[in-house]
Amino acid sequence: MSEQDPGSEPAGTEPGAKGRANIGVTGMAVMGSNLARNLASREGNTVAIHNRTTEKAERLAADHPDAGFVVARTAQDFADALARPRTAVIMVKAGAPTDAVINELADVFEPGDIIVDGGNADFRDTIRRERELRARGINFVGCGISGGEEGALLGPSLMPGGSAEGYATLGPILQTIAARAPEDGEPCVTHVGTDGAGHFVKMVHNGIEYADMQLIGEAYDLMRRILGMTPAEIADVFDEWNAGELDSYLIEITAQVLRQDDPRGGGPLIDKVLDAAGAKGTGSWTVQNALDLGVPVSGIAEAVFARSLSSDPARRAIGQELPGPERPVRVEDPRVFLADIRGALHAAKIIAYAQGFDEIAAGAGKYGWEIHPGEIARIWRAGCIIRARFLGTITQAYADDPGLVSLLGAPVFAESLGKAQQGWRRVVAAAVYSGVPVPAFATSLAYYDALRSPRLPAALTQLQRDFFGAHTYRRTDDEGSFHVLWSGDRSEVRES
Amino acid sequence: MSEQDPGSEPAGTEPGAKGRANIGVTGMAVMGSNLARNLASREGNTVAIHNRTTEKAERLAADHPDAGFVVARTAQDFADALARPRTAVIMVKAGAPTDAVINELADVFEPGDIIVDGGNADFRDTIRRERELRARGINFVGCGISGGEEGALLGPSLMPGGSAEGYATLGPILQTIAARAPEDGEPCVTHVGTDGAGHFVKMVHNGIEYADMQLIGEAYDLMRRILGMTPAEIADVFDEWNAGELDSYLIEITAQVLRQDDPRGGGPLIDKVLDAAGAKGTGSWTVQNALDLGVPVSGIAEAVFARSLSSDPARRAIGQELPGPERPVRVEDPRVFLADIRGALHAAKIIAYAQGFDEIAAGAGKYGWEIHPGEIARIWRAGCIIRARFLGTITQAYADDPGLVSLLGAPVFAESLGKAQQGWRRVVAAAVYSGVPVPAFATSLAYYDALRSPRLPAALTQLQRDFFGAHTYRRTDDEGSFHVLWSGDRSEVRES
Repeated sequence: MSEQDPGSEPAGTEPGAKGRANIGVTGMAVMGSNLARNLASREGNTVAIHNRTTEKAERLAADHPDAGFVVARTAQDFADALARPRTAVIMVKAGAPTDAVINELADVFEPGDIIVDGGNADFRDTIRRERELRARGINFVGCGISGGEEGALLGPSLMPGGSAEGYATLGPILQTIAARAPEDGEPCVTHVGTDGAGHFVKMVHNGIEYADMQLIGEAYDLMRRILGMTPAEIADVFDEWNAGELDSYLIEITAQVLRQDDPRGGGPLIDKVLDAAGAKGTGSWTVQNALDLGVPVSGIAEAVFARSLSSDPARRAIGQELPGPERPVRVEDPRVFLADIRGALHAAKIIAYAQGFDEIAAGAGKYGWEIHPGEIARIWRAGCIIRARFLGTITQAYADDPGLVSLLGAPVFAESLGKAQQGWRRVVAAAVYSGVPVPAFATSLAYYDALRSPRLPAALTQLQRDFFGAHTYRRTDDEGSFHVLWSGDRSEVRES
Repeated sequence: MSEQDPGSEPAGTEPGAKGRANIGVTGMAVMGSNLARNLASREGNTVAIHNRTTEKAERLAADHPDAGFVVARTAQDFADALARPRTAVIMVKAGAPTDAVINELADVFEPGDIIVDGGNADFRDTIRRERELRARGINFVGCGISGGEEGALLGPSLMPGGSAEGYATLGPILQTIAARAPEDGEPCVTHVGTDGAGHFVKMVHNGIEYADMQLIGEAYDLMRRILGMTPAEIADVFDEWNAGELDSYLIEITAQVLRQDDPRGGGPLIDKVLDAAGAKGTGSWTVQNALDLGVPVSGIAEAVFARSLSSDPARRAIGQELPGPERPVRVEDPRVFLADIRGALHAAKIIAYAQGFDEIAAGAGKYGWEIHPGEIARIWRAGCIIRARFLGTITQAYADDPGLVSLLGAPVFAESLGKAQQGWRRVVAAAVYSGVPVPAFATSLAYYDALRSPRLPAALTQLQRDFFGAHTYRRTDDEGSFHVLWSGDRSEVRES
């Protein structure tokens, strides 16, 4: 807790406030307020706060007198209140509002100062902003912050990018507020990489979160529709799973929401909730960037598609008229089927994370970031929505083999997939015969089987492309590109 | 055939050439040359041709003296050679080269003239260019051209956007060269919609083409790996299918390439072709834009992902170490299984096209285009890669019900899906148990079943989101948005 001066007004303009704060936060909506309170609650921090409308900042200071906030009325006050190098976190809406605040601060900050964007920026904006501010001598850090409002207040997972110079000052401050992994107490923050690396990794985190949630949803649906279990019974299963390799925040809260009765009475709340899932766009971004990078992220894509489909009442109304199986398949031994679902969930989760880490590696390659994937898994172990025991296993896998090409090459995951694969097939087949949609379970299995296939029908694709567009093909037994004279004598010509 | 003046030099500067051509083509690579030849071969057209290096245009004119080309050496010559309103088609690489040529022409063209971009432009570039040229009084038309080199020469499917004013002059010229549908002889061209509508629709066409090819590849793989058939036997099956509801150019050429022996000897060519599929980006664009529009296009996405996966030797090498089923399932009656595959292919194709047409409808809504989907299906019936009898069925479905929300709501397709669905399930289950990846068959079935589901696990997604992010949920029995005080007394509060 910072030293407090209860005699003075909570404003940054009085002489005593000058240069007193080691960190500032501008943007006092709930995320910014909570981050400011978190910072103020840690030994050694004095926090300057600023907001477009000063009242909001003054109210926060008044509501939390122990926080010792230094309230700045103007951007100049804010700059004056900060010790050098000035370090300030912007917590406003992504896009134009962020640009506006950056420009405002850049005008009153000086070379060597550090401006942090803690919003959900598109990493390409972050790359641009970093370049522009670097030209003015200012360190710009795009910092992914995960964990929602509660994480911001109590300990988020933090993914800062930007320069090493900026991190030298910023890192120790972020370490005071980051979540700490239960395994070893390490703070969930690292210097992810330069310029937009932090926001890129945060984007992929969100994409993985979509896949994780979709997989849990499919597991629930299978238990509900094929095994005929109640939400409370399914909650018990998730609780049991949460004691093993699936131990994670999302599994834990799934059990809680399934056990929640409708506060208005009449049974489980989930049965009264409109089954139309919302989305805020970072899942789509993750898939769009994966497509740019040529990385298959089918698990994330199916999760995004499942949400949009659920929110399309016109097409779902049409679907109600389409025929399907008369009843779900009869499962001989529900305990075996539950074990199969558990294995399938674990296996599909491994695939989704492997695809996400592939995207991070490809992004690092394209944008020139030196990202250590094991470090990313390490800082996701606590504070963020996908926090899980599983992430410690990923960290360990990269520690055991820093050159790991894919998570699927790690013995620990290959073994899990091998153990799960027969049950995974039974689950997908039962769903298919029962008319229960399991797009994420199915696509991850297809991905697994495609990787395993010694030969793929891509050879046919290449011949079709050569036929209609002279796109050429390569051969397994010769170097170069070839083309068949399809409309001619069907001889093969070498194209390069 | 245009009148020819064999006595004059093939250059546009001599007085006699002034204003003589009713259409011009600039960019004499193979697509541009073929389009120019196609135009010149039709009654009533006189074609001015132009190229950055004049030699290429001169050579084309010399190689095809009957075409009566008017060769223009400079942009000014090109403009002078064209009758008013000048109408010129640019056939150069998308991106900066296209912008360069547009600017060059705009400087020598006049208000009322028409500049057509026949390249594979991003439709957003087309929207921008149309706006910029409209400000200068010039009609800019982005025109999708499908059918490859052969289509350009003999009759492509043409998808022009731009203003109605531009189409009034351009349309009749395009009608002379467009492919003609076998059913009714109608030219495969229509005014798709304003500004970027043509290039948008061309993009979706290519995305659908990816899905179509992937589905055929999966059907092939199932026959190969589960039924143990040879490529020649599979070719016979495709030939048989080509006589029915699957009748299409792609099925036809699939039979041809499967029957192709390696010209070097030693069996079918397909077995010597490297199974790494290439891609030129429009498939990815289709998915990326669908994500922007919130439209699930899982069939196209899986096709794009399958190509990138196939071209990733490092990960495929890891996959070879992963365990799968020891052998494919034994199929009791191969004839039944073949019929199942045929039905599954048809059903999955219906889904892929329905998703593509959904994307067109969503794009039209977002960008303000008045697109008639039945017209789009009509102009795809010939000339383009996905040409098929199937497209006539789609045209008819929209004619029968112009307000059709989804192709799946058309009785003809609902009936086909209903007939196919049990076999489709058997096919996907057999693939899953055999370890044969069928991502496109599986995702289309999951989409079908999700649309059919009265309740989706999206309700769980919403409760999870409300738990960790206070994102709120809606109820089935009340208006408004609600939130549970998860960390409090678990009561429900109304948020709006």
